[in-house]
Parts: sequence; structure tokens; C-alpha cells
Amino acid sequence: MVDNFATALEQRIEAGMAPAVVGFDPRIESFPRDCAAGESAPERLLAFYREAIPAIAPHIPVVKPNIAFFEQFGWEGFRAYEDTCEAARAAGMLVIGDVKRGDIGSTAAAYANSHFQWADAITLHPYLGSDSIEPFLQHCRGAGKGVFILVRTSNPSAAEFQSLKVAGGSDLSDAVADAVRRWGEGTGDPDGYATVGAVVGATYGDEIARLRERMPRAWILLPGVGAQGASVADVRAAFDDQGRGALVAQSRGIMHCFEPDDPNWRTRIEAAAEKFATEVRSIAHAKT
Amino acid sequence: MVDNFATALEQRIEAGMAPAVVGFDPRIESFPRDCAAGESAPERLLAFYREAIPAIAPHIPVVKPNIAFFEQFGWEGFRAYEDTCEAARAAGMLVIGDVKRGDIGSTAAAYANSHFQWADAITLHPYLGSDSIEPFLQHCRGAGKGVFILVRTSNPSAAEFQSLKVAGGSDLSDAVADAVRRWGEGTGDPDGYATVGAVVGATYGDEIARLRERMPRAWILLPGVGAQGASVADVRAAFDDQGRGALVAQSRGIMHCFEPDDPNWRTRIEAAAEKFATEVRSIAHAKT
Repeated sequence: MVDNFATALEQRIEAGMAPAVVGFDPRIESFPRDCAAGESAPERLLAFYREAIPAIAPHIPVVKPNIAFFEQFGWEGFRAYEDTCEAARAAGMLVIGDVKRGDIGSTAAAYANSHFQWADAITLHPYLGSDSIEPFLQHCRGAGKGVFILVRTSNPSAAEFQSLKVAGGSDLSDAVADAVRRWGEGTGDPDGYATVGAVVGATYGDEIARLRERMPRAWILLPGVGAQGASVADVRAAFDDQGRGALVAQSRGIMHCFEPDDPNWRTRIEAAAEKFATEVRSIAHAKT
Repeated sequence: MVDNFATALEQRIEAGMAPAVVGFDPRIESFPRDCAAGESAPERLLAFYREAIPAIAPHIPVVKPNIAFFEQFGWEGFRAYEDTCEAARAAGMLVIGDVKRGDIGSTAAAYANSHFQWADAITLHPYLGSDSIEPFLQHCRGAGKGVFILVRTSNPSAAEFQSLKVAGGSDLSDAVADAVRRWGEGTGDPDGYATVGAVVGATYGDEIARLRERMPRAWILLPGVGAQGASVADVRAAFDDQGRGALVAQSRGIMHCFEPDDPNWRTRIEAAAEKFATEVRSIAHAKT
């Protein structure tokens, strides 16, 4: 486990890695046929990621396993989530646990105490307000952990609540963005980025620039590239003038870029990861 | 597992049980000293609930385990959650899994397919809108499962977003309540309650009557009684004129109503459960 998520992330990017994230949203039916065939689903998850991580680690600094696809297999899937996080960290990668938790204060503390054992950063729901976030912020301030608050999600019905106009004429997502800015105070580098970031779907290009302005110190995590329809170019506005402050995420386009019976799936994952890293780096650099 | 959550719930209440829920929010430090002492934390959770369930089952129809307090112990805690749900169902109780999940469509399907194996109903975040709820609604329509959407939560900072005024002058929580009403169409009893309910904190008494009106077919689940400061009387407005449509939840006041070194903890839990059931029944009946 790294000492400080934000520092470790910036070091990797300054060393030339792309500000890119590969999502682990396992779909067993798309898994390679020659990888742990015949074993249980949770065993296949872990075996696949253990073999795939070395193919992506040279190119991409961060993985984002979505716990839903693990815990769908019950406690054995949950164990595979823990072990997958561990395998990624052992390979020198940073882990954003896409857990989308959110509960009242005393319960949030239970989530915070455990999930930061497995992941360097996690995603959180904002609906319950500050006291549901504060137990996580204690880990951001003290131990340099990271959180990414759901601000504007990538799904088709995101606008239903997130684009409601609230007092003052801004969107609900703007009000959440303002809270993200406040929650980040006292975390991370005072002259740079906070360890409190935001999830902003890459599928809503016109929102990205506005939210970037409202949260000048927040890392913006952008899912939705690839299968969900956004391109790497759509996220240009999320980067600052130094090409920093944004993380572009892709999942299926890299981890399921092969046919299940293709024996060269490791090579294909590595090529897709390298291509994605190159694309993201060029978009980030285009801002400088 | 019961066939239909809403039907099973109504049958139990019509048979004279209280519309009451006991929350399982385990705090190991408050556990009885003579129950599975010396075993691992997840083993102690399961042992405690296996012994406590027979003390509450004669009085209370529903338990609500909060998964955060289980998964804080990793996969072994997750297994204890599954087994605790199973123990409650084996005792004839209904289970509301307080999991507060919420993710985009394809991911929501993964959560829905698994969590309804363990619980008859679960709690959900609304922030991502309809397509994040729809995969759960398919189980509500088809298999009679239940969902409780977070509308107005019981915590101190709930108002931060939930009471923002949105277009038309109502609160964000009212807009979510309107969605709960729509999502419930086609579920449950056409002349009675839907299987799409709402979480409304018992700590905000003045909101309850307004939200009851906006969601006439929604079961309202009211946490916050006891340790969080609300009384059973505060929730009166959540019941309809027949004393139906609301479920009052209490956790610590029942499950941790004893000193850890008290050997009579089972008797004390049973007495607390019976007293709570009597209080809730009298509030519900006062409306008729």
C-alpha cells in the first residue's frame, strides 16, 4: 500500500505514465477460455486478474475494480475482490475501489476503516451529506487516502436528479461539486490537488468544463470511455493547463478486447492498454 | 425465502405483529461476554445473532442487518452477513438488507441478482436515477422483492442536499419521493402497497407527513428511533388511516440494551423487542 494516494499518483504521472485507469468490471462470459477453466467463478476472477495485471501495469498506473461484479458471487467473490486489490498493489499499481458506498456517520466509519485496507481510494455517494463523508476524510487527511464523490455520473438517467435546478439556478451536481471543493480543504498538497476527487461521466462533455472550474483542486475521475460511448477526446476539458487533475477510465475496451477463445489475450490486453495510455497522454499533453 | 415481500409483510401485520423492524448494526464491544468469547469477530457476529433471533422473532416480523458492520471484517464478515440473513429467514422473519447500493444499469443488475438471494428487500441510493433502479424493479415486479429508496435520511447533515429547493419550490427529497411513486407502479398490490418503499428518517418529524402524501402506495421505513433521538410517537404521520404503510426501525435500543457482562441478555433483548412491538402497534392503531 502506498503512503499517500495523491502523492503516489502525481509521482507516477510525472514519471511519464498516463493519467489513465483501467476498470475491472468482470464479465465471466467474456473471460478467456484457457484461464482457470473449470474452476469456480470467484476463482476465475482472481486468476484472470492475476494474469492480466502484469500486462497493464507497465502502461497504466491505476486500476478500478467495481466491487458489485465481485460481491455478486457472495463472500467468495468478496474475497476475490480483496485478493485482486492486493495483486494490483503488489504490482505497484494504485487501486481505486469502485464501491459507491454511502451511509450515516457511525456506519460510514465502519466502511472507511475497512475499505481503505484494500484500496488506496474509493468512490462514494453524496446524497447523505457531510457527516456521511467526514469519516472518510479523516483517512484522507491523516493517511493520504483518496475519495471520489459521485458528482455527474455516466449513465443515461444521470440527469434525472443530478441536473435538477437548485436555488441560485445551478444544477444539483454543481451543489455537490461545491461540497467536493469544501471537503477537499486540508487534504493533499496545499498548492496542488486534494485527495477528495469527483466522478464525472465522460459521456457528458458539456458538463466537464463547468465542473472542472467549480472544483479546481479535485482530481476528476472520468468513466464512460469506450463501451458507454465517450471518446478519450471528450474529456479534454477535465485537465488543467498543465495537463493534470484528471483520470480517464476505460474498462471493457481493454479487459475484454479479445474473443474468449483467443489464446493471445494477454498480448491483446497489453496492446489495448498501451494504446489507451498513449491516447490519454496525448489528450493531457495537448492542454500544456 | 418468502414468495412475495409485500404480501408476506402484510400477512404478518394482519395477523397481529407490529409493523416494526429491528436493525442489526453490530458493535462487537457491546456484545455479551458469554457469547462465542474468544472466537473471531465474524464468528462472534453470527453466533450472537443466531442466539438473539429466537428472542425477537415472536414479536418483530422484520430484521434489517446493515452490511457495513459485517463487511468491515472483509470476506469473513460478508459470509457472516449471508449467514445472519439465512438465520433470520429460517426463523420465519423477513430481511431488509441495509446495503445502500447504487450504480449504473449493468452494474446494478449484478447487485440485484445477488443481494435478493440473501434479503427479501434492500435499501438503495437514488442519485443515479431510474436506470440504476430499474434492474431491481424487475425483481420487484417478477419475484415480489422489495426496495427502499433513500428519500430523507436520519442523519444530521441529511438536509444539505435532500432539502435543497428544486424547480417548483419543493425539496430534492420531494423529487425523489415522486420518483419512488412512479417506480412503484406495477409492483405489489394494485389496490394496496407497492414493493417500492422509501427510507424516511424518524428524526425529521415535520417531513414525514408531507412525504407520506407524496408516496401514497410506498411502504415508509423509518430508522432513527432510540439512539438517534426520535421516539416511536414521532412517526405517527407515516401510517395511513388504517394504521398501515409504515415500518418503524430500532437498532441499539434493542440489540444492545444490556451490559456486556449481563448473563440475562437474551431475556433483556426479548423484553425490549416486546416493548418496542407494543409501542409501535399502539401508534399504528391510534390512526385507525
